[in-house]
Amino acid sequence: MELKLAFIGFGNVARAFSRLLDETGRMLAERYDVECRAVAIATARHGSIVSDDRIALGEAAARIERGQKLCGLPRTVDVADALEVIESAGADIVFETTPLDPLRGEPATTYIRRALQRSMHVITANKGPLAFAHRELKATAEQRGISFRFEGAVMDGTPVFNMAEYCLPGARVLGFAGVFNSTTNFILTGMEQGWSFDECLSEARNLGIVEANADYDLDGWDAAIKAVALANVLMEADLRPAQVERTGIRGITRDELKLARDRGMAIRLVARARVCDQGLKLTVAPESVPIATPVGAVRGTSSVLVLETDLMGEIAVLENNPCIKQTAYALMSDLIRVRTEMK
Amino acid sequence: MELKLAFIGFGNVARAFSRLLDETGRMLAERYDVECRAVAIATARHGSIVSDDRIALGEAAARIERGQKLCGLPRTVDVADALEVIESAGADIVFETTPLDPLRGEPATTYIRRALQRSMHVITANKGPLAFAHRELKATAEQRGISFRFEGAVMDGTPVFNMAEYCLPGARVLGFAGVFNSTTNFILTGMEQGWSFDECLSEARNLGIVEANADYDLDGWDAAIKAVALANVLMEADLRPAQVERTGIRGITRDELKLARDRGMAIRLVARARVCDQGLKLTVAPESVPIATPVGAVRGTSSVLVLETDLMGEIAVLENNPCIKQTAYALMSDLIRVRTEMK
Repeated sequence: MELKLAFIGFGNVARAFSRLLDETGRMLAERYDVECRAVAIATARHGSIVSDDRIALGEAAARIERGQKLCGLPRTVDVADALEVIESAGADIVFETTPLDPLRGEPATTYIRRALQRSMHVITANKGPLAFAHRELKATAEQRGISFRFEGAVMDGTPVFNMAEYCLPGARVLGFAGVFNSTTNFILTGMEQGWSFDECLSEARNLGIVEANADYDLDGWDAAIKAVALANVLMEADLRPAQVERTGIRGITRDELKLARDRGMAIRLVARARVCDQGLKLTVAPESVPIATPVGAVRGTSSVLVLETDLMGEIAVLENNPCIKQTAYALMSDLIRVRTEMK
Repeated sequence: MELKLAFIGFGNVARAFSRLLDETGRMLAERYDVECRAVAIATARHGSIVSDDRIALGEAAARIERGQKLCGLPRTVDVADALEVIESAGADIVFETTPLDPLRGEPATTYIRRALQRSMHVITANKGPLAFAHRELKATAEQRGISFRFEGAVMDGTPVFNMAEYCLPGARVLGFAGVFNSTTNFILTGMEQGWSFDECLSEARNLGIVEANADYDLDGWDAAIKAVALANVLMEADLRPAQVERTGIRGITRDELKLARDRGMAIRLVARARVCDQGLKLTVAPESVPIATPVGAVRGTSSVLVLETDLMGEIAVLENNPCIKQTAYALMSDLIRVRTEMK
């Protein structure tokens, strides 16, 4: 089966995914009976194009990496923007990976809503739409009988949403704890080793893991938005990031980290969801946790989610030192899921 | 849909599962459209029964817990043994949880083979059939178009087999490392805290986690069989436990454990699978690993599996302090899977 793909956003993640598609095309065809044809790309700064034929993704990626516009690529026509791509490209699946305004979940939510309303499957790596509009978007997808998938929104391609949906049938998630923000975890583990806050932040920037506005990492917004995304999906909540009780990592000193370390503890920016008398409560705050625990053992850019469930007790899933390929894989695992659910 | 269940073995695990079925019956009916009717129980010491009607599982469990025979339970007739149950009960699903001879994988493998040949779905919590006959049993199930499921064989109901099958589509498992044996891990972490080997073993026996023959735990056989089960399923190997290079935990001293601890390390009985020049190699041996890692952080009866994959890098799944309920949940998650795949 041929699937027509539209890319809304064609940054690092989408380009890594397009390379992965290229590398795995034969496996996808043989094992999952899926052949992908790119029919549209929308970008904010490099123009937007659609094609009746097939867009050469490698060439499109090369242009963007050289700072060039997409317009004029063979067998494509220019269109105005992402919304026109959604309206006119006739795609089967929209891959939404635009840069996010973390405090509004836009423009991702608008794009996804529009694509779902046009009965296109949507795959996103953005956490914002889950944190601001999961319930609405899920209902729209269900009404249309199409898929809305987002494994990459938290912990890249590590099975988090899919694990709960497909591997814990009949069980309920009662709460969770986790380390979800790589920038702050990278800084905390760097400072444990004696580096200064500024040195660690600068190195994190070199790795490309810091949000455009680093405050979103350092003040716990990224972790809070991911916690809300998880709570909205796994616990059927309908919370918003502003409802998270949130403390960032500013002010934590090397001395505190060293002292904790000497006691077999680590300070980690921990996101927690737990049910209390007032209902479901989400918090993000630095905590001192034993290093010989799943949360305490997470170092550098690694991350962890510990789920507390009714029937399966406590289980944890960890991602070790991910790179962009693992986010690309998130999109691919969602693509395969969409394909297999079409059967 | 009503499903007729036969229990081959009705020990702690099967009885915990029958209680779970009782507690979750309404949820199973509402969410998964499944109603379970027990039509047979086979045991080695308490007799074997079949019913045209419905066996009261609570009453059957109570009899066994009082040391009584099953024969004479209302609306049942006696049969000779497990094989007669498989032949005569007309079950849809066979739950196989018999005590295992770890060095032969029997009698579980024989029972499962027979049930699959009779086109009954089989759900087991036994690792042996995977370590001794996975390829054959899988082929039989595929030929008949039925399910052979075994999530409980390693790490109870923690998604291990299901995670790889349903949440890592298109990815290949290149190798793994893990701590799978709770007895040895309980002993090692107890000795770290200053208890003697014998005290720890005795406490592990009190917890009911030790194999009937403790040598199978202490000499690494249990971990080796689980490693082979994982390799045979996740890496499509066809290995046998005797091919595992195996060292147990005997001879490890409190001093060694304390010295490791002082250096931020922990000694763990680690099972590993890796591809080398000679092909896939499995080892089980005590290793000194940093405590701030998924393998090093596993304490007491907890367990961990770290998967190395081609597309998704390294991910780990941990189970924290399981009890018999989590093994029972393994059977239930398999039951739900069998049901949903019938649709």
